[in-house]
Amino acid sequence: MLQSKLFTKTRKEAPKDEVSRNAELLIRAGYIHKEMAGVYDFLPLGLKVLNKINQIIREEMDAIGGEEVSLSILQLPDRFEKTGRWSDEKVDNWFKTKLKNDSELGLGLTHEEPLVEILKDHINSYRDLPCYIYQIGPKFRNELRAKSGIMRGREFSMKDMYSFTTSKEETDAFFESCTEAYKKVFARLGIGDRTYKTLASGGIFTTDYSVEFQTLAETGEDTIYIAPDKSIAYNKEILDKATTEFNLKVDEMTTVRSIEVGNIYKLGKIYTEPLGLRYKTETGEERPVDMGCYGLGPSRIMGTIAEIYNDDRGLIWPLSIAPFKVHLVEVTRGEDTQVKAEAEKLYSYLEEAGVEVLWDDRTIGAGEKFADADLIGIPYRVVVSERTIAAGKYELKVRSSGEVTSVSERELLVLPGILKEK
Amino acid sequence: MLQSKLFTKTRKEAPKDEVSRNAELLIRAGYIHKEMAGVYDFLPLGLKVLNKINQIIREEMDAIGGEEVSLSILQLPDRFEKTGRWSDEKVDNWFKTKLKNDSELGLGLTHEEPLVEILKDHINSYRDLPCYIYQIGPKFRNELRAKSGIMRGREFSMKDMYSFTTSKEETDAFFESCTEAYKKVFARLGIGDRTYKTLASGGIFTTDYSVEFQTLAETGEDTIYIAPDKSIAYNKEILDKATTEFNLKVDEMTTVRSIEVGNIYKLGKIYTEPLGLRYKTETGEERPVDMGCYGLGPSRIMGTIAEIYNDDRGLIWPLSIAPFKVHLVEVTRGEDTQVKAEAEKLYSYLEEAGVEVLWDDRTIGAGEKFADADLIGIPYRVVVSERTIAAGKYELKVRSSGEVTSVSERELLVLPGILKEK
Repeated sequence: MLQSKLFTKTRKEAPKDEVSRNAELLIRAGYIHKEMAGVYDFLPLGLKVLNKINQIIREEMDAIGGEEVSLSILQLPDRFEKTGRWSDEKVDNWFKTKLKNDSELGLGLTHEEPLVEILKDHINSYRDLPCYIYQIGPKFRNELRAKSGIMRGREFSMKDMYSFTTSKEETDAFFESCTEAYKKVFARLGIGDRTYKTLASGGIFTTDYSVEFQTLAETGEDTIYIAPDKSIAYNKEILDKATTEFNLKVDEMTTVRSIEVGNIYKLGKIYTEPLGLRYKTETGEERPVDMGCYGLGPSRIMGTIAEIYNDDRGLIWPLSIAPFKVHLVEVTRGEDTQVKAEAEKLYSYLEEAGVEVLWDDRTIGAGEKFADADLIGIPYRVVVSERTIAAGKYELKVRSSGEVTSVSERELLVLPGILKEK
Repeated sequence: MLQSKLFTKTRKEAPKDEVSRNAELLIRAGYIHKEMAGVYDFLPLGLKVLNKINQIIREEMDAIGGEEVSLSILQLPDRFEKTGRWSDEKVDNWFKTKLKNDSELGLGLTHEEPLVEILKDHINSYRDLPCYIYQIGPKFRNELRAKSGIMRGREFSMKDMYSFTTSKEETDAFFESCTEAYKKVFARLGIGDRTYKTLASGGIFTTDYSVEFQTLAETGEDTIYIAPDKSIAYNKEILDKATTEFNLKVDEMTTVRSIEVGNIYKLGKIYTEPLGLRYKTETGEERPVDMGCYGLGPSRIMGTIAEIYNDDRGLIWPLSIAPFKVHLVEVTRGEDTQVKAEAEKLYSYLEEAGVEVLWDDRTIGAGEKFADADLIGIPYRVVVSERTIAAGKYELKVRSSGEVTSVSERELLVLPGILKEK
């Protein structure tokens, strides 16, 4: 893409009311726009990043048998009344609205109830199970305050998967397979090393643990306790229970700040029972379906990565989710047609090889272009100038390390992660 | 995909309260679920169709310079107050909600105002124009009644593009280029022949016409008048004006029922002026930006196509948006391992060639499978049975024509539209 055609511009200052590092950088670099606290728009660069995160998640959910759907945002009260989640005393962060006939609706904050209702049309027998259904789309939570940028939104995107099985054992098995899928997602997103499977309370309905996935970040809202062997972590609410049960000592654990980027729960029959989602066993007996739910927050993950991977000059995207792989910067003096032609040649070469390139073809100074490139944070910056033409090689700067080298066209194509996966 | 893994089941009857043909068929075939009047969920098959429609639209919008964004659903009142579109007396179909501090928000029904606000951060000079920005996402309209299935929703999907230029002339030029892009979209969607560019009133702010794209359908809510040479149509509201201006006689025109699937408007400065989106000309003069808007309804288009292309046995999808290209039906008698093996061989062959296949591997009767295949409406049905194995060829049935022939593996691959575009 030609940068001169990108409508967004970078800016030196974020809005004064923006207190989070992730949103400050993402706004300054033109990825997002702030509508109000906790509500952001995704501009072209931001939507590219978000779509890449979504696609990685989608591939891993499909790989474990997920079927994708898109459920409505407007929600009927009746099914939430049956599970005790409609009244504002029980769930205090609904956004509610009204039809013309004055009947109340909610804006989807979670989708267990409507999906269970849908499945009543499709599940009859043990032969119809298991099924694993997910969507990626907007969720709404009416938070009193929202000051963490896109890490905690009033309107945010979520991948919510729900498993439906014949038994707790089957749910347990899928719980493990989803845990493994999540690990693959985090590895592909570039946060595998710093994201911990974290045991948390299973909620009031079960003695089982639930699992959170917590990514280390100094500005995180959560605190977790990492086991000495680093294999697992525990959250604060179950720390006492965990130390007793697993014979751990708190002072041998590492205490860190973190951000919850995903969570998985065993739900058992707490929604299927009151809503009447049952299946017939082989012997014709009717039983409630067993259920689990598996959340990931794509916009929160984007915010977390922006929050973690940056320096005082700007963002530093992992290759897998960067909006472009190469930021091609032409450095011309006025109407320098030779440099322009060389930049165009390289642009075509890379695009034809399947490399995503943002070509800074603007007629502004080199200093401004380099500052923008650092702020936008594309992994590989390649400069074309009179000097590089004279040298017969391009100048490559790796955004994450700052390392500068001279490379040929062909050497660019073998850089790690520069080509699309598969 | 294996049909045994698809969680949706077909059904003989649609819900009793469903009065529209499109939703009746789409629900019976398992594409969608009805939450309430005008609000539907997209199940795996339905989401596949919707995504294909979205992708065709996206490609054609990108081809004319569109930049994709995703704007928030929650909307602040202030900008709509400035353009006179907040109060319920002016715009009577808002869904409204409230933050915890009791301040009102709206659910996005259109996005001129928030996008103009965003652009105030990015547009300063004539050099920053033109730009063409679009999104594909949910819109909300609080309709008193909604009984046209997914052809008219309270929650529905929309592609809304907005052009920002320095002058009316530039807007006019993009208006034409978008008209051509829309024609390509309709042709690719399989409704090109029956979709008319239709002149309509430009609204109270302009003497220009606006353009609607109207698709012929007996159950359509609109009436249009097609000119004798079939090149253009006129809607009812401007019929008198059009006959005078273009010297046409109403009784020489063809009067038909139709569905509005898209519309484009020249907005001039009606939003940019009150909201203060200005640019500097070459001579440093400040002027309001000129604007146009260009809508298409992906979910409405899906409903329209379902409404038009069906017979008494079910849906008949155009190849470009069918959820799968081939419905592979194995007809076995009990544990017929030879037929299963042959079906598996063909499935792998087609998948490897890039053909999207739904393989009916279920252990149910042939009659039930054929009825489901007709209802689901995938363009090519291919049967594998003892008889086809004996004949050394597969049985092919074209859903749209009903034509049945015998074909080899290789002959399947050259069927029109069976391979993915490009």
